[in-house]
Amino acid sequence: MADGTSRRRFLGGALGAAGALAAGGAGFGVGRATEPADASPASTPSVVPFYGEHQAGIATPAQDRLAFAAFDVTTSDRQALATLLGTWAAAAAQMTKGLEIGAVETAPQAPPIDTGEAVGLGASQLTVTVGFGPSLFDDRFGLATQRPAALAEIPALPGDALQPQLSGGDLCVQACADDPTVAFHVIRNFARLARGTAVMKWSQLGFGRTSSTSKNQQTERNLLGFKDGTNNIKNQDAHDFDDYVWVGRETDQAWMTGGSYLVARRIRMLIESWDTDQLSDQENVIGRYKTSGAPLSGKHEFDTVQLEEVRHGTPVIPVNAHIRLAAPSTNGGYKLLRRGYSYTDGIDAQTGLLDAGLFFIAFQKDPRKQFVPIQRKLGSHDALNEYIHHTSSALFAVPPGLHEAGDWWGKSLLT
Amino acid sequence: MADGTSRRRFLGGALGAAGALAAGGAGFGVGRATEPADASPASTPSVVPFYGEHQAGIATPAQDRLAFAAFDVTTSDRQALATLLGTWAAAAAQMTKGLEIGAVETAPQAPPIDTGEAVGLGASQLTVTVGFGPSLFDDRFGLATQRPAALAEIPALPGDALQPQLSGGDLCVQACADDPTVAFHVIRNFARLARGTAVMKWSQLGFGRTSSTSKNQQTERNLLGFKDGTNNIKNQDAHDFDDYVWVGRETDQAWMTGGSYLVARRIRMLIESWDTDQLSDQENVIGRYKTSGAPLSGKHEFDTVQLEEVRHGTPVIPVNAHIRLAAPSTNGGYKLLRRGYSYTDGIDAQTGLLDAGLFFIAFQKDPRKQFVPIQRKLGSHDALNEYIHHTSSALFAVPPGLHEAGDWWGKSLLT
Repeated sequence: MADGTSRRRFLGGALGAAGALAAGGAGFGVGRATEPADASPASTPSVVPFYGEHQAGIATPAQDRLAFAAFDVTTSDRQALATLLGTWAAAAAQMTKGLEIGAVETAPQAPPIDTGEAVGLGASQLTVTVGFGPSLFDDRFGLATQRPAALAEIPALPGDALQPQLSGGDLCVQACADDPTVAFHVIRNFARLARGTAVMKWSQLGFGRTSSTSKNQQTERNLLGFKDGTNNIKNQDAHDFDDYVWVGRETDQAWMTGGSYLVARRIRMLIESWDTDQLSDQENVIGRYKTSGAPLSGKHEFDTVQLEEVRHGTPVIPVNAHIRLAAPSTNGGYKLLRRGYSYTDGIDAQTGLLDAGLFFIAFQKDPRKQFVPIQRKLGSHDALNEYIHHTSSALFAVPPGLHEAGDWWGKSLLT
Repeated sequence: MADGTSRRRFLGGALGAAGALAAGGAGFGVGRATEPADASPASTPSVVPFYGEHQAGIATPAQDRLAFAAFDVTTSDRQALATLLGTWAAAAAQMTKGLEIGAVETAPQAPPIDTGEAVGLGASQLTVTVGFGPSLFDDRFGLATQRPAALAEIPALPGDALQPQLSGGDLCVQACADDPTVAFHVIRNFARLARGTAVMKWSQLGFGRTSSTSKNQQTERNLLGFKDGTNNIKNQDAHDFDDYVWVGRETDQAWMTGGSYLVARRIRMLIESWDTDQLSDQENVIGRYKTSGAPLSGKHEFDTVQLEEVRHGTPVIPVNAHIRLAAPSTNGGYKLLRRGYSYTDGIDAQTGLLDAGLFFIAFQKDPRKQFVPIQRKLGSHDALNEYIHHTSSALFAVPPGLHEAGDWWGKSLLT
């Protein structure tokens, strides 16, 4: 890199990418991919296709790591918002291939287009999923009449202890990958590309996935030490996706067809208290055995949960057990696709306890019929409430997938 | 797990482990390993030996993830401190084998001994490294005369912007693993085992290693987008370890022979400013090319840094470049073993900027001759200072390795 020749070798690509990123309006597609400069992407097939009917990062088998961010738009210029979304889409198309968003080796007098920390790490199964918060449909961009009815603010729910500075947002970005630097690289570069148009409001790293979303994945444990997501919707269940996750013809806003609704809740776990609770209590709170993950009515993890089973006159799965109250059969048959991650953010300065828990993410067809009533019931009656607080809440309409280079999130909404 | 038989199968082991963990004093060794209950450790060889001449986690090739915590001892009972260290050692011996610290399936009326979230994740190259802060050698435990001269508080240094609540501590635990849940599991369970004896003061997660410590590892990039650790000490350099890392016969305190000194500094990077800086400035600040990692005096990453090279009357590696000021040849030949990780802790509420950077960890024979003078020079002159703040600082004496079950950190110091 010390000689002018290698500099020049990158220059064309760099200016091309810079031009495309700056173009706005119609020409977002970064046609020319800049190959990683000093390492090829990981040799294992690690690319999740970015384009498709639905956004990746929903039905995609849950990757190991999460970087999530919410942004507030700081302009009321509708074209600037469109340009941002187009720029983000072009950048996401690059990053999900394991490529930089543009050259690191720019002209010496220009800042690098890509921040560079993920060079050489490959695609790492990266998915980038973008959503629109209810606040985006206020009077700034003329979108009020296009707000889907299902994008109704989540009402106050029993047990809420929400921190406004960690809640809401006009836009969200969910970056999932098997490498945390690859995921973080997305939100950092999105924040940079947003300069002058949007600012990051809050962000959250997730260090371990807690919900398998594929029958080929082992069920991971959350920080309560219990397997989480045993009865989650799996990506092999196409009918469940159609019935509970993907927005279909029932929507009042055609631009959302093929999309979904993302609910994010930061669920702080009082793990120090939990850890002093006796095993049988923990198992009764959840409704499952801790080690095996089997329901208390069964012997193996995937045994059908028998809510009606009674022993010595007492329900085997207690009336306030988490899995009973969350079960589809006690919620009008409704299911959610959970896709959460464990988090820890150090010590809670007020209490000296670990600030740790579950960053809950769920996708669904209509939060009014799925997350909200289920959580209303859980917040009122769940035995787990003694050990958890919901400390943040956010809701986003996740539009359908992008079809090809040049497409971007909300194109049919904003143009 | 639903039937009494399988419960009983675990009971003996659980009580045995509980007894050993509670024994204190001499009998720390958890003789009976409780095998993972529902999954065998990962099939790849993932166990780093816990016992040895030196503590693991120093010369060990840097793993991918970090969980670090500092604790303050809340008792002045020397025996309670010894019991804690012995209990931690017994637990670490288990966890580094990929096993729980004790049974998850206890008697129903007892809390689980292990918190359970890492069950099934294997050893994941886990290392657990423990150190003693200067404050441990105050008058509480009668250790003042055994304080090594090298464990001198790090003085105020140019450029410090330290947060006391994230600095110092009586004890530290560095847990490194290729899986972040495995690393977090250590500090959570150590905090639990410390109840009544010590409380966690601060903790830090690291999501991506930034310093390779083996010639078999690729050099990773820090959040500046530059390769970090090219000229780090590598574990193939036994002479460098003897000369710069391991405490030898020169020590004034024999109990530290074979140990090392750990300096931790949370280095906040002002990445938004950095990202607007032009490429040539970034490269001059560091003294290396961004993409290749080659020194500005060379063409390839591992080319020798030629500090004397001049072009058109100007040093090719600027006089205030980071690699010049940090180079051993400008620091009396002294080197450090760096073993840091990238971190991000969300948004800085005061500025709205990302709170992200490098959690710097270095091991050395004598911080008075290594970290302190090098950082004094860097803090005064380093061109990088425009883009970084040191927001926390901590120093710990890391005793030598444990020899066998029943041994514990500081046994020769406290008994």
